[in-house]
Amino acid sequence: MLFPPALRQLMQQLERLPGVGARSAQRLALYLMRRPEEEVRRLAESLVQARERTRLCQRCFFLSEGDLCELCSDPSREADLICVVADPRDVVALERLEQYRGLYHVLHGLISPAEGVQPEDLKLRELMERVRTESPREVILATPANVEGDATALYLARQLKPLGVRVTRIAYGMPVGGELDYADAATLGYALSGRQEM
Amino acid sequence: MLFPPALRQLMQQLERLPGVGARSAQRLALYLMRRPEEEVRRLAESLVQARERTRLCQRCFFLSEGDLCELCSDPSREADLICVVADPRDVVALERLEQYRGLYHVLHGLISPAEGVQPEDLKLRELMERVRTESPREVILATPANVEGDATALYLARQLKPLGVRVTRIAYGMPVGGELDYADAATLGYALSGRQEM
Repeated sequence: MLFPPALRQLMQQLERLPGVGARSAQRLALYLMRRPEEEVRRLAESLVQARERTRLCQRCFFLSEGDLCELCSDPSREADLICVVADPRDVVALERLEQYRGLYHVLHGLISPAEGVQPEDLKLRELMERVRTESPREVILATPANVEGDATALYLARQLKPLGVRVTRIAYGMPVGGELDYADAATLGYALSGRQEM
Repeated sequence: MLFPPALRQLMQQLERLPGVGARSAQRLALYLMRRPEEEVRRLAESLVQARERTRLCQRCFFLSEGDLCELCSDPSREADLICVVADPRDVVALERLEQYRGLYHVLHGLISPAEGVQPEDLKLRELMERVRTESPREVILATPANVEGDATALYLARQLKPLGVRVTRIAYGMPVGGELDYADAATLGYALSGRQEM
């Protein structure tokens, strides 16, 4: 490698980020070498500050700087409606709809025996606890339509229904294998309003 | 926007990087929130250290931590042969060949009236100075085959030849294995006008 050591180390670290290959790591690093030192320092500070300040909402496990996230702190939301999603980005996708007015529960993954993700690796126990204490009128499962999403939805339905809560799953107007984050608003809207009893 | 402020700010800064759209900025930022704080801090430090330590080689303007880059400090290179390129990545591409043993001169751009890049914005004056003091036996122009690359090569040839140095430009034409039928008109044009006596 021809690049000097500190630059090379930066390239190696950038290359480890998801979706950043060797070529884009090189392009990014060289771009940053052309920027004012002050700008690079600001980016570095943003990285550290975001990581230090951001934690998970204690209620729904979306991202937050306080104990409760923006959604859980909003008294205008319907607190007896919980939509269960795999990833924080799914919350953003559903909020873009401006149709759903309940709260969320972010699992931070899906059950996947193939990838060694067990129920205890996810925020599932916390969901049970929450349903037990909050007694919502409905839990909407919005896990994706794929093997892991189905397995997680079935597992949750089996665990939740004995608690006496209504459990529904969003309808599959969603294309099979598609991720919430990538769905267009119309498809997502159909899926939400067409949810079925489980 | 639903994300908490520090995370949102990070996403906005990542989005400004070349080749990083809103979606990948979001994915990158969320990925980093899941990594240990220590790892994020190391990345931030790498950014600052690379930016602080890396500067341009005083001779060829490739990247370096010292006054001279690795290539210019290597006594086994043929110092009387200078290959002129637009970008540091072009040096890496040519070095991968393991065929060229001379030195380089990185212009850090190409003359482009359309984008307002004038000769004085590039390391052109430094090249003239270098040719005058080093008296190389040959200057090889390796700017790309497009409007800006051609304009820069022509400008350089006009400036360099009065100094009595041999000026050549790398060959452009059909790539090896390429079929005429599939070549774009521009490539085919270069191949035709650059034809050689057999």
